[in-house]
Amino acid sequence: MAVYTEVDDTTLTEFLSNYDIGSVISFAGIAEGVENSNYLLRTTKAHFILTLYEKRVQADDLPFFVELMEHLAGKGMNCPLPVAAKDGSVLSEIMGRPCAIFTFLDGTSSRFPNRTKCRNLGTALAQLHINAEGISKTRPNALGPESWKSLLDSVGSRTNELGDDMLMQVEKRLAHITSNWPNDLPRGIIHADLFPNNVLFMGDDLTGLIDFYFACEDILAYDIGICLNSWCFEADGSFNMTKSRALINGYQSVRKLSDDEINNIPVLAAGSAMRFFLTRLYDWMNTPKDALVSPKDPMEYWSILRFHQSVSGPSAYGFYQ
Amino acid sequence: MAVYTEVDDTTLTEFLSNYDIGSVISFAGIAEGVENSNYLLRTTKAHFILTLYEKRVQADDLPFFVELMEHLAGKGMNCPLPVAAKDGSVLSEIMGRPCAIFTFLDGTSSRFPNRTKCRNLGTALAQLHINAEGISKTRPNALGPESWKSLLDSVGSRTNELGDDMLMQVEKRLAHITSNWPNDLPRGIIHADLFPNNVLFMGDDLTGLIDFYFACEDILAYDIGICLNSWCFEADGSFNMTKSRALINGYQSVRKLSDDEINNIPVLAAGSAMRFFLTRLYDWMNTPKDALVSPKDPMEYWSILRFHQSVSGPSAYGFYQ
Repeated sequence: MAVYTEVDDTTLTEFLSNYDIGSVISFAGIAEGVENSNYLLRTTKAHFILTLYEKRVQADDLPFFVELMEHLAGKGMNCPLPVAAKDGSVLSEIMGRPCAIFTFLDGTSSRFPNRTKCRNLGTALAQLHINAEGISKTRPNALGPESWKSLLDSVGSRTNELGDDMLMQVEKRLAHITSNWPNDLPRGIIHADLFPNNVLFMGDDLTGLIDFYFACEDILAYDIGICLNSWCFEADGSFNMTKSRALINGYQSVRKLSDDEINNIPVLAAGSAMRFFLTRLYDWMNTPKDALVSPKDPMEYWSILRFHQSVSGPSAYGFYQ
Repeated sequence: MAVYTEVDDTTLTEFLSNYDIGSVISFAGIAEGVENSNYLLRTTKAHFILTLYEKRVQADDLPFFVELMEHLAGKGMNCPLPVAAKDGSVLSEIMGRPCAIFTFLDGTSSRFPNRTKCRNLGTALAQLHINAEGISKTRPNALGPESWKSLLDSVGSRTNELGDDMLMQVEKRLAHITSNWPNDLPRGIIHADLFPNNVLFMGDDLTGLIDFYFACEDILAYDIGICLNSWCFEADGSFNMTKSRALINGYQSVRKLSDDEINNIPVLAAGSAMRFFLTRLYDWMNTPKDALVSPKDPMEYWSILRFHQSVSGPSAYGFYQ
């Protein structure tokens, strides 16, 4: 949570003269997003978000992200719509950073989403998968299974700082996941980071999907694994199957899963847990002590990973056999 | 700039049921204020700020701050108005922290305020001094001249990390200021931290004074010194007398300064520079490397201090003799 680049009033006013979105009423850096700097901008016309893309986001990927959001918003989904400047361009630059302005979405994220929210999230996830079809650009998953071994190797024996033999245990579990990884499931554009903090609600109604900066082309059902991990485990680490079933039922109300997809849910969810374990592990070991963002504990995802590798099959997630 | 305490949606909804301010549309931690956590709260009725008071603010001081803002807003000044809960109380608690809700003020702060803004700031400062009269509570200046020697002593010889003989030089300059400190100038409630980031404008119109958490009882003209230091020095360290004159003229259009006050401006401004030099020095030496807030360079204020101790008299600030 941070604002990495400060934008002063003079620069802002000059920048906004390129847009037809009214004049500034208020402007505040918001403590959201770990990759970018985000400002809440209120003008005489509406509320907007100004996003400055910081170093961790590849400038080459920006046209894909922007097209995806335009495409989804155009299909009626509640996601930020990039706002074009007077010259028609969407991507611009401010304070030496690439940037874009987006419509603001109402709603608040839910720290402990209930069953109804989980169902609504499942529905929106399936809609995202279907509505993303037909976009012209694509982006490989830079954090997909092929990247995991080298991510682990880059931390190496420091992994054992988390516990005795951790490196060996991670290697073993990783080998098990990759050797069982499915290669013929339906693929498409996935969000790849649809944690509760990236979904907005008013009451239980889902009003917004945000933060598309990990979106990429991958196995669609892998996205379900990411959501099961981030939405259906309680604070004490226990798995809430009622929420899982609600999420899956919501998803299937829009896009029916094949038997093959269903049977692969455990390994996909384990793979998703591995991905977040490994990136958190990397950040845990590599974040400077004076960083603005505190790294998250990788062990939370280790416990989730162990759960998925211990289940007997898809019924554990609430699929009816 | 930070949000120290996170407020989840469930806690927020329950908390807001004590208020009659509508239901939540959006809620975002904003990257402003170094002492507190601030959230921008939009409801079906209006925009508000929810402030959580963190450890550096004394809970005992909160009733004074709240009364001051109520009092000033009641006199028509553009400052945040504390919002009472249904039971009439203004100070409350959330996530184990004292907190209060305030009306939201439109406008943006100005990084490089022009002459007109400096004049408007001067006018608002004098209005604040006059309008604060008659409030029932008071608060001594915890960072007033009596505190400076012990602040310096707490850093001690580490001061020399800033340069050879710095401790001795600071002691010398400090002794000069305290031995010349006036003790019979008009006193009252001062803001004591009216830097440009605490003042909001729309165009050049001043629309808000915020962050009253250093407000206290002290010499009124000392507040002018604080503003001269933070508004009238350019980024390259040079003093802009045109802005200084505008600020002073704005002030005197509301509250005429006595000859005694005018003649003491150099020492009051030097004292103000010493105060910010010393607190920055302390923070510079004592901020943990992993802190959310980066300490500011004390040397900026050392250079300002040297300016004030080199001037020939009040004419240097644009007072007509």
